[in-house]
Amino acid sequence: MTARVRVPASSSNLGAGFDCIGVAVDRWLVASVTLGGTGISIRRRGTLSAVRVRADQDLFSRGFRAACASGGTSLSGTGGGGGGGGRRTIEAVSDIPVGCGLGSSAAAIVAGAMLADAALELGLSRAKILEIGTTIEGHPDNVAPAIHGGAVLSVHTPAGLVSSSLRVSPAIELLIAVPPFPNDTKAARAALPHTLPHCDAVVAASRAAALVQGLATGDGALLGAALDDVLHVPFRRARIPGYDAVVAAAQKAGAFGATLSGAGSAILAIAARERSAAVGAAMLAAWRAAGVVAELIRSSHPVPGANVSRVSRIPVSTEPL
Amino acid sequence: MTARVRVPASSSNLGAGFDCIGVAVDRWLVASVTLGGTGISIRRRGTLSAVRVRADQDLFSRGFRAACASGGTSLSGTGGGGGGGGRRTIEAVSDIPVGCGLGSSAAAIVAGAMLADAALELGLSRAKILEIGTTIEGHPDNVAPAIHGGAVLSVHTPAGLVSSSLRVSPAIELLIAVPPFPNDTKAARAALPHTLPHCDAVVAASRAAALVQGLATGDGALLGAALDDVLHVPFRRARIPGYDAVVAAAQKAGAFGATLSGAGSAILAIAARERSAAVGAAMLAAWRAAGVVAELIRSSHPVPGANVSRVSRIPVSTEPL
Repeated sequence: MTARVRVPASSSNLGAGFDCIGVAVDRWLVASVTLGGTGISIRRRGTLSAVRVRADQDLFSRGFRAACASGGTSLSGTGGGGGGGGRRTIEAVSDIPVGCGLGSSAAAIVAGAMLADAALELGLSRAKILEIGTTIEGHPDNVAPAIHGGAVLSVHTPAGLVSSSLRVSPAIELLIAVPPFPNDTKAARAALPHTLPHCDAVVAASRAAALVQGLATGDGALLGAALDDVLHVPFRRARIPGYDAVVAAAQKAGAFGATLSGAGSAILAIAARERSAAVGAAMLAAWRAAGVVAELIRSSHPVPGANVSRVSRIPVSTEPL
Repeated sequence: MTARVRVPASSSNLGAGFDCIGVAVDRWLVASVTLGGTGISIRRRGTLSAVRVRADQDLFSRGFRAACASGGTSLSGTGGGGGGGGRRTIEAVSDIPVGCGLGSSAAAIVAGAMLADAALELGLSRAKILEIGTTIEGHPDNVAPAIHGGAVLSVHTPAGLVSSSLRVSPAIELLIAVPPFPNDTKAARAALPHTLPHCDAVVAASRAAALVQGLATGDGALLGAALDDVLHVPFRRARIPGYDAVVAAAQKAGAFGATLSGAGSAILAIAARERSAAVGAAMLAAWRAAGVVAELIRSSHPVPGANVSRVSRIPVSTEPL
């Protein structure tokens, strides 16, 4: 029993959509699982090569095991058969930068869960995969676009987590400048204050509304306001060397605005399509002036979501991304 | 020189869209101005009959004068001619409940400003009228739909106040139950706290995003979350007798949710069109059980915005609404 999955990178928050909005980005994790080997084996290549983690803590494994548990398949079996028992080989190759705010963790969790679902024929819905991924990740903003593709709003409601695909104007483009250093996501979250002035919360809410409306209409003034977040970026930006210079350069080159991708280290700008090349170049130049060689990801919308298939034999290691 | 204007009521906030989102409602203020009389005279009928205010503090006058100032017309003239000088007669009739959270103040300000613009040919744009109204009112959420009609998001940006018309699914309907007592808007604002837990601000932002997306798609779960606001309603609801019972009755009858219209006293519910009659009836019944005889406004979307015209003679006092 084998399965293969392809999961996109994602950029969350987009300024004012803190912990609730994310967009799929055109970088990919490709992973496969083969059941029936001996023991748990995870082989990583590409940007995952440097990842060092205990197999049982690995995010592929955690996603895989959570899906098995959700699908009612026992994880305690020791046999080498097709059950949820521990014997499996996961091979993964990725060109998603790790630890830079591009959803590499969410992609790994989603990959693990979808591989389990496909290989073991668990019959889990995408909503269930989202729930599994959100539980492990802690918030849905990267998990939802990794699964569904495009830009997605995810909101906790009494009826559970609701995800809704957002309209995105074809007139805009996302530019993401990725520096060669990661950010510490836990420290970035710890930097948030416990309370906020009520007036700032009011501004934050209006800008979250502006983000949804700005993405749909391409209205530059709304997007500019939305990217100028007050909930998290003011408390995090000092952690990213060069942040202010790169954001200023993007705006000067014509971007509606720029902000952290997730908690950083990558910086995301949104620009009119005809300005996007200039904006991307300006962001890289600003970082270069600060001694940082960054990489640019231009991501046309919409990027599709995760795609999984059951196959007889998957030569992941010889496949191009 | 005379002009006539018709301005709709409006319901602001809609739960999570605090101070930034409002929707035009199918009740109307009709007003006319005649220049060249002697002194300032304001005649009010309909729901405005009980309004007692000094002429120079009257919202029609304030809107009128602010428009004159913005249009460069002096207010100090004493002549009876067509200039901005004080000599004018405003006649107004309205069926918008006053002080109940249905934008009667915003309608009066907009009426005054648009009458000045039309009668004196000031050539003000709707954006300028919005700016004038927002300055007098303090926030744009009622002024914008009164001018533009439909549902409107208004966001403060470095480039000024930006208003954007929101998509509203034709599958939903707004029900507004209006009790016969007004609310004290100033006291309702004073009830807001100075700070908020950061986690509540995060929830508030996600629900503001949910409001924009829920209005556009008609998604009931998103609208339910959006109507369950954490920024203002928790601090205001105790001021409206019967609030909890009316909201619960609306939900039980099938509404996605219900909340204060503006700062109250009216309560707004959003429901699927086929549930709306039952929801409206349930809201009135709940209030009746609390000893309150409320009035129901069913408002199909979209309600058009303010409409102004220059005319030779306006018999407002004999016109139906």
